[in-house]
Amino acid sequence: MAVIIPLTEIRRALEGIDVLQAMEQGFVAYSAGRVVVPPVGELLFDDPAGDVHIKYGYIPGDEYFVIKVASGFYDNPRRGLPANSGLMLVFSQKTGELAAILLDEGHLTNVRTAAAGAVVAKHLAARPVSRIGILGAGVQARMQLEFLKPVTDCRDVLVWGRRADAVATYRTDMEAHGFRVEIAAAPGHVARACDLVVTATASHAPLLTAADLHPGLHVTAMGSDTADKNELAPDVLGRADLVVADSLAQCIERGEIHHAVRAGVLESQTVVELGRVLADPTRGRSSGHQITVADLTGVAVQDIQIATAVYRRVRGGVDAD
Amino acid sequence: MAVIIPLTEIRRALEGIDVLQAMEQGFVAYSAGRVVVPPVGELLFDDPAGDVHIKYGYIPGDEYFVIKVASGFYDNPRRGLPANSGLMLVFSQKTGELAAILLDEGHLTNVRTAAAGAVVAKHLAARPVSRIGILGAGVQARMQLEFLKPVTDCRDVLVWGRRADAVATYRTDMEAHGFRVEIAAAPGHVARACDLVVTATASHAPLLTAADLHPGLHVTAMGSDTADKNELAPDVLGRADLVVADSLAQCIERGEIHHAVRAGVLESQTVVELGRVLADPTRGRSSGHQITVADLTGVAVQDIQIATAVYRRVRGGVDAD
Repeated sequence: MAVIIPLTEIRRALEGIDVLQAMEQGFVAYSAGRVVVPPVGELLFDDPAGDVHIKYGYIPGDEYFVIKVASGFYDNPRRGLPANSGLMLVFSQKTGELAAILLDEGHLTNVRTAAAGAVVAKHLAARPVSRIGILGAGVQARMQLEFLKPVTDCRDVLVWGRRADAVATYRTDMEAHGFRVEIAAAPGHVARACDLVVTATASHAPLLTAADLHPGLHVTAMGSDTADKNELAPDVLGRADLVVADSLAQCIERGEIHHAVRAGVLESQTVVELGRVLADPTRGRSSGHQITVADLTGVAVQDIQIATAVYRRVRGGVDAD
Repeated sequence: MAVIIPLTEIRRALEGIDVLQAMEQGFVAYSAGRVVVPPVGELLFDDPAGDVHIKYGYIPGDEYFVIKVASGFYDNPRRGLPANSGLMLVFSQKTGELAAILLDEGHLTNVRTAAAGAVVAKHLAARPVSRIGILGAGVQARMQLEFLKPVTDCRDVLVWGRRADAVATYRTDMEAHGFRVEIAAAPGHVARACDLVVTATASHAPLLTAADLHPGLHVTAMGSDTADKNELAPDVLGRADLVVADSLAQCIERGEIHHAVRAGVLESQTVVELGRVLADPTRGRSSGHQITVADLTGVAVQDIQIATAVYRRVRGGVDAD
């Protein structure tokens, strides 16, 4: 019988897991071709607007395979519900049996997404970071910032968001987490005044253009995960000295690279996968003056890594009791 | 918080559900283009051999969408475990929230698969059926036969299976269910002696050829659901007067039709979808002498129909308490 693990227990397990390391190992394995990751399953809804992604796969020879369901229904907050929901399923690779249901309500997707942002910042941002820029004021805008704490000492933040009230709340909340937060009037101001920028919106129109870039800037675009979402104008990626993808196969179908390749300003073969940068740092940033862009669409290997880590931790705890 | 529905409760709910009707309505809606069914997600394992299918979709305007995971690990029985496992997830179309986890352990997949076989027999087999032929002695070989009870009065069965011990057990078990069961020495004997044949094996090589066919025969091939499984030689479909698919889109990628089309003996545009036969019986069998073949690969609409029916029944029961 499968173990059902509720969110409170998942949160407790996460405290004992080095999520950044699990993500790094996952990306390296993925880019080395050691992970089976079929194309993302997708359901799109119009009324109300929502999307559901099914990400799944396995590392051959590991004990488990993982299927993750994550939904985003963007009108939910108006109804007092979180926009994101979902669960992760852990199965035995040897018998196909369901081992665990992680009722994470989307939290593990948020954590692994934020952790991927931190991995990217750790390996691609120029040092030292003088100011962090955030576009968006939602869950990821918060978690990306929190997850940057272990990878930079910088606590100065410039934020832009579409809704003034949400941005004001963001400032209050993030200041309570030890950041000094200023509010920008436009996305371009953020890019111009910061050297590490994370875009964390569900925008369908570009927020930054090449005119907003400056030497030494790193941008992590993590908001767009479907073919029609878009945070960076194609010329941002065209101008960058280095463009990194979490998954090249996914990023030519969805996310920012997809738009830039279609616009003819970026050749997909110049894009480097994150796992290759981690395995060989010479493929990453080569100077403090380069402009680097990372496009994160979310890869099943992140779900595999975090779900198996949580399940092993919970199971270990059960065994130890 | 999602309702978690264990197998015992699912079995109880099924007693109050007209599964055949739910399948018929589902197939009609599917073939009328009223169901969103993305391509099947698939994971294949070598050591030990196993396959996992993720089927999902929704009927726009309905309350729910459904994601089903079903695994088959064919060495499991040697380890004392059932070959098939899985679960179904019911989510709200309005918020993306997980409404119910149906821990069916693969049972609902078995039920909806057997029910589809019964729907096919009801609408395509020549009347009256004098003898039912079964290839295989596994779970579906049993359930297909049980589900035929309401659609035919015939209780005479000829069965063939690869393993003599499994076939002997099959006979004993099915005789306890009110059938008279004989055992055949070869698959071809079954086709020649019966007028309604169900193939329910995981064979990777054809079991029946055109030489085994006779006027009036109907064959339902439900065992092959991947691109490499194969129960019927291409010339069986080439010779048939009518070939019906549960899903044309799926059957040109996997199952029997897939093999016959690739072999050049069947044109996919001559294949009729089951939902069209149900909506318009003139598209079905036109005489007692025709040879008809139905290829069932399993369609997400079946999972949608059965999962939502079970959840509504359980929820209704809860509401009524």
